[in-house]
Amino acid sequence: MTGPRGVGDDAPMRPTWVLFDLNGTLTDPSALGAPWGRPDLGVRILGDAVRGGMTDALTGGDRPFREHVRAAATVVAAQEGLDPDGVDAAMEAAAGLPAWPDARGALEALRGGGYRLAVLTNSGAEAGRATLEAAGLLDLFESVFGVDAVGTFKPDRRTYEHAVSGLDAAPGDVLLVAAHGWDVAGARAAGLGAAWIARGEVVLPPTTPEPDLTAPDLDGLAARLLAR
Amino acid sequence: MTGPRGVGDDAPMRPTWVLFDLNGTLTDPSALGAPWGRPDLGVRILGDAVRGGMTDALTGGDRPFREHVRAAATVVAAQEGLDPDGVDAAMEAAAGLPAWPDARGALEALRGGGYRLAVLTNSGAEAGRATLEAAGLLDLFESVFGVDAVGTFKPDRRTYEHAVSGLDAAPGDVLLVAAHGWDVAGARAAGLGAAWIARGEVVLPPTTPEPDLTAPDLDGLAARLLAR
Repeated sequence: MTGPRGVGDDAPMRPTWVLFDLNGTLTDPSALGAPWGRPDLGVRILGDAVRGGMTDALTGGDRPFREHVRAAATVVAAQEGLDPDGVDAAMEAAAGLPAWPDARGALEALRGGGYRLAVLTNSGAEAGRATLEAAGLLDLFESVFGVDAVGTFKPDRRTYEHAVSGLDAAPGDVLLVAAHGWDVAGARAAGLGAAWIARGEVVLPPTTPEPDLTAPDLDGLAARLLAR
Repeated sequence: MTGPRGVGDDAPMRPTWVLFDLNGTLTDPSALGAPWGRPDLGVRILGDAVRGGMTDALTGGDRPFREHVRAAATVVAAQEGLDPDGVDAAMEAAAGLPAWPDARGALEALRGGGYRLAVLTNSGAEAGRATLEAAGLLDLFESVFGVDAVGTFKPDRRTYEHAVSGLDAAPGDVLLVAAHGWDVAGARAAGLGAAWIARGEVVLPPTTPEPDLTAPDLDGLAARLLAR
């Protein structure tokens, strides 16, 4: 497995495209737990939803990611002994998760520095655009790719290949940015560069292939990339 | 997708083999959180470890499941602000999770009723046998299958096919029993029957294909199967 040209921390070159994961990376999932006064449950619900998507990817299922979020919220509420009626409110929140406070500034800085920006989300492309619009970020991206186009979920390599193809780029010209080790693993397996943001997971899962870059937040990511 | 011959709740027939998932289904994962006095974290650590295994399955990785458990324990401890030194103790616990209290009685009852018993675990076969031995259950099973034989993880259909082939059975003669919706999904996709036990997840994830049978615990499973 090799990193992209020039994305390694010791390399002087830089990627053309910065391809962002959406849920949890550009947006704050805490609101998923707000109906129960448990913002800490947001990351967990999102992580369990991702496991649902991976289950579909491995068994031939093809549900909208939203259904996996609902399933995860339902199970987590039951595990925590919380009112199941909160699930509907959590799903309303899921449709409009707010951007992380540093997202817009970091993205504008990257664009100002000559980077081209896109999104690859485990949601469908249309749902992804709606989320970005609600978060006030949609105008910053040239393209938004969803997994619905290939009928599977990240980290299936076909999802990354779909985005790379849509960008008319080589995998090594694209840096995937995610707050999830599983997304770093998928991007690396597909030949893309990968950056890991220390949100949600807090520490890099030790099973994750070495990212080309790590940062505490999106501001930190922008600073690292603009120093190249 | 069709269930196995006779396993449907309305059907009079019964499967030849009952194939048990191990971690969380036959054993209680609470001890994974015991180093921090947080038994509630056990199910969560195990669930995150499974997501790590699915990531390997989708990206060509092939780590022992134990590494995914360690990664999950490391991240969950960081997310909860717990002492990272507890991870080593959690890993010691992981190697010897106790059987659920009703496991031995339920398994003996099933054998007495003419069912043949086997295990298919997301661990390697040898690690699975060691876990069963430590839990005092190994003598009850005719076969123990691990995912190491196929270099992937459940719910990849090849894992179920490996077990079915090893039992010299048809998929429809085998009922997979698991406390995990993703395992039910995998078994059904591979043509096996599937029973879901309401432990850990507490409620059946709504994205799960309809199981052939559900039960609150292993005693309940045995009662349902012996009534056939």
